[in-house]
Amino acid sequence: MVHIVGWGHTKFGRLAGDVEDLVIEAGREALAHAGIPAADVDGIWMGHFNGGMVADGFPSSMALQIDPALRFTPATRLENACASGSAAIYAARNAILAGEARVALVLGVEKMTHLPTTEVATALGHASYQKEEAGLSFPAVFAGFARAYFERYGDKTDALAMIAAKNHKNAMANPLAQLHKELPVGFCARESDRNPMIAAPLKMTDCSLVSDGAAALIMVSPDVAASMPRAVRMRAAEQVSDFLPMSRRDLTAFEGPAEAFRRAYLSAGVTLEDIDVAEVHDCFTIAELLIYEAMGLTPAGRGEDALLNGTVLSSGALPVNLSGGLKAKGHPVGATGVSMHALVARQVTGAANEMQKPGASLGLVFNMGGSGVANYCSILEGERA
Amino acid sequence: MVHIVGWGHTKFGRLAGDVEDLVIEAGREALAHAGIPAADVDGIWMGHFNGGMVADGFPSSMALQIDPALRFTPATRLENACASGSAAIYAARNAILAGEARVALVLGVEKMTHLPTTEVATALGHASYQKEEAGLSFPAVFAGFARAYFERYGDKTDALAMIAAKNHKNAMANPLAQLHKELPVGFCARESDRNPMIAAPLKMTDCSLVSDGAAALIMVSPDVAASMPRAVRMRAAEQVSDFLPMSRRDLTAFEGPAEAFRRAYLSAGVTLEDIDVAEVHDCFTIAELLIYEAMGLTPAGRGEDALLNGTVLSSGALPVNLSGGLKAKGHPVGATGVSMHALVARQVTGAANEMQKPGASLGLVFNMGGSGVANYCSILEGERA
Repeated sequence: MVHIVGWGHTKFGRLAGDVEDLVIEAGREALAHAGIPAADVDGIWMGHFNGGMVADGFPSSMALQIDPALRFTPATRLENACASGSAAIYAARNAILAGEARVALVLGVEKMTHLPTTEVATALGHASYQKEEAGLSFPAVFAGFARAYFERYGDKTDALAMIAAKNHKNAMANPLAQLHKELPVGFCARESDRNPMIAAPLKMTDCSLVSDGAAALIMVSPDVAASMPRAVRMRAAEQVSDFLPMSRRDLTAFEGPAEAFRRAYLSAGVTLEDIDVAEVHDCFTIAELLIYEAMGLTPAGRGEDALLNGTVLSSGALPVNLSGGLKAKGHPVGATGVSMHALVARQVTGAANEMQKPGASLGLVFNMGGSGVANYCSILEGERA
Repeated sequence: MVHIVGWGHTKFGRLAGDVEDLVIEAGREALAHAGIPAADVDGIWMGHFNGGMVADGFPSSMALQIDPALRFTPATRLENACASGSAAIYAARNAILAGEARVALVLGVEKMTHLPTTEVATALGHASYQKEEAGLSFPAVFAGFARAYFERYGDKTDALAMIAAKNHKNAMANPLAQLHKELPVGFCARESDRNPMIAAPLKMTDCSLVSDGAAALIMVSPDVAASMPRAVRMRAAEQVSDFLPMSRRDLTAFEGPAEAFRRAYLSAGVTLEDIDVAEVHDCFTIAELLIYEAMGLTPAGRGEDALLNGTVLSSGALPVNLSGGLKAKGHPVGATGVSMHALVARQVTGAANEMQKPGASLGLVFNMGGSGVANYCSILEGERA
């Protein structure tokens, strides 16, 4: 069993700092939060996508700039596209379970806003299967999912708009979020000068943000956790990878994500009904809709029901993306998985402040690289707040 | 304890295939060599640097193209510059020790030769600390080490030339090597039209190659190893990371590498005298010289003794780089760490053919990312051939 005992999280948005600055800020905050000295860290794992956005092609040892006591501590970078942060968490978890580390420092980081949007799109496009999808932007990739879904199940523009409006509203309670601006469903549903079509049927409000940011976790073995003031238990950590080419996948269902959820419920010994709160990968609103179905909230083609019946709203039985999600919290891609785990850890320890769902004790994270390619589902339980 | 029970290795050099082709070739060969069906693989770890050399920014799931039975198998990319391959091996080892995998497929891959040399140099330069070293090519980085060493201990041009000549000679016995061309020490020692200065005092013969290639390993838990016809035990696997900025390190000594060797000997319970054969990271001849000292073969400043007294020659007590090393075997950076482990595994199971050191049973790998930044030292023992 592995526990999370501390976390750090920069604001997400257009930030002055570079990759190194962001890593240092989040890392120092997490160490201080856990009350663990840098000298006690046995290993460092860093999630970072890059894809050409920054020149730092070998960032793992930048984490040693957090504290001179980290010299000679093994540091490793993980990349699994927009799930790079979870890849780092899962590698750290394995090291702890293996007995190779008692204290792990996990970092996720991305620097994106210094580039023009077209260059960001090109860099993110490198996460696609180049032989068949080169030049296809990620909005275009997910527009393909939306079109396939609409063709099969009918136009769901309103459901997508409800997701966008929900996440923008939720972000109002998250001071770390990039955007603090409520958007009415009607605005999100309609193409307009201020909400242009990006890749039909996805409009600007269907797309997540371009962001800078970093997040950090301190993960420890049970003997270390026992002496810590707070502890969040990782009840499940399941990764499922699917074929990279879109041509080998069914675009109307998230089969890889569904398998990750299935395995996570099984390994934690829980059902969806036990989950109090979830942070899921809303890189595009259509992704969040498909995730409702993959997680078992609704049958295939009925994801909108989770919105219409209020389940996933902040007041519902299973609020989804109380942080504002990638849509409004922001999406510094390498940081996202770590941020999701940190925010669910806050929820299940009652430390989410204005975002808090009262009494939450069991939370779920679903972080995804590519369009359902690298799928990570974690279940976290507050053990001690 | 973790065992290596199979391996695959493409030829290194200027190859027609792309990243996917290379991954498929090495991966299928390793599975066939181990006699393990793809359906039995519990996880995939891939070492790949990239740094802008190819557009495939999210390559982990490309490994699923090896066999349809790999669908839903977790696949993760690791990047630690030129030690990305060892980063993948160490992550797989942790997963096995953690009980999260019984059978791991490890891949290392790089595609470089399609680019002009200047673009390769730029991409590799991304592995340096950009704030202080941007624009500095890797030959220039290691030339800095050579100049510092020469200033402190005297001109060692002849020792570097002996390293180059030794590794070129060794490669003659390795059919997978990129270059099969013996070079006399005199040629390597002298600047000439055919051996130009690249970054003084390093000439072309002091630099490793630009290469395409992939290598793969099958790593398993003890219960799986017990039923395998061959098994190589990982007696030690130690990673030590050092500060990224050169300004924070002593350029006349490889302190991070020395610490990795020290920890590896300790955890394996062996001394240098027990080692029969070694593959070490000769990205530049000066690196191999510094590694002799870091591994404890000679005192500081006396690395040349290991050449002059014959210890590291193919006929010596501890042959170093019988494969030809990065210098002549080639250096597809993400593949290198995996290749080194595969070649030492062959040595300690008596399967190295023309390269074989008779009777070798204990072998050492030293793979390095950056200039002594991410340092991996493994000790492998043949258990069953």
